[in-house]
Amino acid sequence: MLCTLLDQQRTSRIAEVMELLEGDRNAVILGCLPKEESSEVFEKLDEATRAELYELLNVRQLKTLIYELDPDDAADILSELPPSASEHLLRTMKPDESETIKNLMQYSDDSAGGIMDPLFLSVPKGSTVHETIELLKIQESDEDFYAVYVVDIEGVYLGDVRIRNLFSAEPEQKIEELIEESSLSVSVFYDQEEIKNIFSKNDLIAVPVVDGNNVLVGRITADRVLEVAEEEAAEDIYTIAGTDAEELYDTSIFRAARIRMTWLAPCLIGTGVTAMVLLFFKNSFTEVYTVAAAFAPMIAAISGNAGLQTSAVVICGLATGHMAALNLGQVFMREARIALLIAMFCGLIGGLIYTGLSDVLGNHDPASGMNYVMVSLAFGIAMSAAVMVSTTLGLFLPFLFKKIGIDPAISSGPLVTTANDSISVSIYLFTTLAFLG
Amino acid sequence: MLCTLLDQQRTSRIAEVMELLEGDRNAVILGCLPKEESSEVFEKLDEATRAELYELLNVRQLKTLIYELDPDDAADILSELPPSASEHLLRTMKPDESETIKNLMQYSDDSAGGIMDPLFLSVPKGSTVHETIELLKIQESDEDFYAVYVVDIEGVYLGDVRIRNLFSAEPEQKIEELIEESSLSVSVFYDQEEIKNIFSKNDLIAVPVVDGNNVLVGRITADRVLEVAEEEAAEDIYTIAGTDAEELYDTSIFRAARIRMTWLAPCLIGTGVTAMVLLFFKNSFTEVYTVAAAFAPMIAAISGNAGLQTSAVVICGLATGHMAALNLGQVFMREARIALLIAMFCGLIGGLIYTGLSDVLGNHDPASGMNYVMVSLAFGIAMSAAVMVSTTLGLFLPFLFKKIGIDPAISSGPLVTTANDSISVSIYLFTTLAFLG
Ligand SMILES: [Mg+2]
Ligand SMILES: [Mg+2]
Ligand SMILES: [Mg+2]
Ligand SMILES: [Mg+2]
Ligand SMILES: [Mg+2]
Ligand SMILES: [Mg+2]
Ligand SMILES: [Mg+2]
Ligand SMILES: [Mg+2]
Ligand SMILES: [Mg+2]
Ligand SMILES: [Mg+2]
Ligand SMILES: [Mg+2]
Ligand SMILES: [Mg+2]
Ligand SMILES: [Mg+2]
Repeated sequence: MLCTLLDQQRTSRIAEVMELLEGDRNAVILGCLPKEESSEVFEKLDEATRAELYELLNVRQLKTLIYELDPDDAADILSELPPSASEHLLRTMKPDESETIKNLMQYSDDSAGGIMDPLFLSVPKGSTVHETIELLKIQESDEDFYAVYVVDIEGVYLGDVRIRNLFSAEPEQKIEELIEESSLSVSVFYDQEEIKNIFSKNDLIAVPVVDGNNVLVGRITADRVLEVAEEEAAEDIYTIAGTDAEELYDTSIFRAARIRMTWLAPCLIGTGVTAMVLLFFKNSFTEVYTVAAAFAPMIAAISGNAGLQTSAVVICGLATGHMAALNLGQVFMREARIALLIAMFCGLIGGLIYTGLSDVLGNHDPASGMNYVMVSLAFGIAMSAAVMVSTTLGLFLPFLFKKIGIDPAISSGPLVTTANDSISVSIYLFTTLAFLG
Repeated sequence: MLCTLLDQQRTSRIAEVMELLEGDRNAVILGCLPKEESSEVFEKLDEATRAELYELLNVRQLKTLIYELDPDDAADILSELPPSASEHLLRTMKPDESETIKNLMQYSDDSAGGIMDPLFLSVPKGSTVHETIELLKIQESDEDFYAVYVVDIEGVYLGDVRIRNLFSAEPEQKIEELIEESSLSVSVFYDQEEIKNIFSKNDLIAVPVVDGNNVLVGRITADRVLEVAEEEAAEDIYTIAGTDAEELYDTSIFRAARIRMTWLAPCLIGTGVTAMVLLFFKNSFTEVYTVAAAFAPMIAAISGNAGLQTSAVVICGLATGHMAALNLGQVFMREARIALLIAMFCGLIGGLIYTGLSDVLGNHDPASGMNYVMVSLAFGIAMSAAVMVSTTLGLFLPFLFKKIGIDPAISSGPLVTTANDSISVSIYLFTTLAFLG
């Protein structure tokens, strides 16, 4: 019953539903499906759901699932297992198959080697169109090729030929005569984000991958690159929020809480510093302090957000590789002028709110001798200064982080936001003190 | 000199460099390039750079650029122009070409219709493999097809045939016998984000697009979908930071400042409310107030960030369409338990920092009769409560927003963060008052 029901569903749909179910039910579902389909579904599941299944399936079941996979998918899934388990499974395979998979596993997850498919269609230079077509006919039926890659006797990549051009060519024509002018290849060591940007800029469907000696070793297809784009996008949002996609690969809530606390703990300490700044000034100007302190969250929030707006622009620019965003001078001129405008606005409006609220709530005590005009002015100036400082940080930190090998998205994350709280509140209270001194 | 230098560069590379240059130089570069290449470069530029060029090019130059474009690219670019200009250009074209382009322009930018290519290869049911191959041979040479689409006499889509399978089939075989089992098509009205998720889940390279009557009207290719993924990712990050990709399409810094201020202005008012809450409590417990107020930024920052972590998880889930994230009950159980753990941690650590700092900085005035243990306890409990409230908001708001048609990413944006400031500070001060009352 369940089995016939499942039989009519797309594998992607079955995977979707399984992600909602408990592990033991998923084991039953996988058992229901024909061999090939079950491994297709298994590959499409998210990592967390697969992790649950690793505990429930026995070695024999796991073997069947992995045997049916394409080598690139098999390599990805075996990397998720503990090394002892993956080595055991590899030993049970045919030597040439396990060799291919082991080869793929040596590349880092997010490199071109890690996302490439070792199955491609290549013909040696000198082959005829007729020979190429014969080769195409005997390829595995469920693999699709978008181009034929031409190599020399050493396997060095020479260029690609579109399959549709094989129809119009003469059977005896040499294949290298059909090579596309704008042939492009990527190195196995490229970062996957770089690959994504190359695909996006050149409107590619597939790209050949070469090793250090320019020998053709695989190809990357656009469907895999789309997954890369989704991964990289999620990575950025998680980083900005101060967490990690890692937390989803595990069903343990303790692990998730620990990952989030690693970002919140420094944030606690950082805001502790902000509290210290506020308490430090408490004795310097007791009378005005109680009113001034009430506006510290405003300065912190507005300047923090203005900085976030700037860093978001830079981070998106860096992620898509648009050079405009990589040109520090040009971006700086633009952002600095926008920041100035915003700082002026926020300083003005903030100062007005400050005056209004202090007045309305009857905190204006003439007996105290406080000059509220001066305090409001100080607030407005401090707001402008804080906005300028945080947008400058929002502008330079992503570039700096990228340069020294830290993920630029961290500059929009809780660490920088917290530091910004302390800085802006300090600016605020120092300015107020200066105006009243 | 410049011209021969440019001639050896890829169009994507030329576009990259042009994005860095001033408008007048770009006009010169475009003039240097051969017709076809210049319009290819023009299409690859970002919108801001193109906007500059619209001012500098005369109608004749613009015509030449647009005439060389594929109809889908022409439709996108004409939509960027003022209606009067685009209508004028359309009138100068051949009627069938302008008809195709006008047809495409009726679809919204971010629908399947807006991103589809009207050039596809279709054959009527009943055609032979030989006839299909002959048709393929006479197609325009610079367009690549990944499948042949089979339609009935009304143009209704029946299924797709892989081009590589044409080689192995008998010339006299009927084309419909080669239709792939898992043929998939999408409606012209689908949202582009939905299309992206369909590509990602089914590992597609191209998908046929049908209208309301199931008539084949175009196809969407993976290279365009990759651009969609990048757009959608940037949209989310911009929304979280409280700005808009729109600001980049225009070189005016005033427009950019205005866009950012529309998010910062409510944030100013919101933090004004926070200040009001603080000032309101000022008279209720003057002695403890000065110390308590110093910790308001901590409560606001930590609870706000904890909420952001939760909403980031939900927003990424909604964006990739993984059903797990759409299952409110399951996500709630997970997030609520994580939130409880984090609330306890933050309450405890926060309370300790509170006690420590108040002590160290000599704010512990025994004469005041204040019970600092009670105040710290109140702080810890308030912190836990504020974290729970904001993670609950972070969990439900994205779902709610999606339901009522607001972008879920707004729930991680400055509006919600600001509201959270007021709520958490209110919770804090009420709790402190309750413990001291
Ligand atoms: Mg699950
Ligand atoms: Mg494959
Ligand atoms: Mg795969
Ligand atoms: Mg891999
Ligand atoms: Mg592109
Ligand atoms: Mg990455
Ligand atoms: Mg990244
Ligand atoms: Mg096209
Ligand atoms: Mg295009
Ligand atoms: Mg369009
Ligand atoms: Mg996929
Ligand atoms: Mg959208
Ligand atoms: Mg979206």
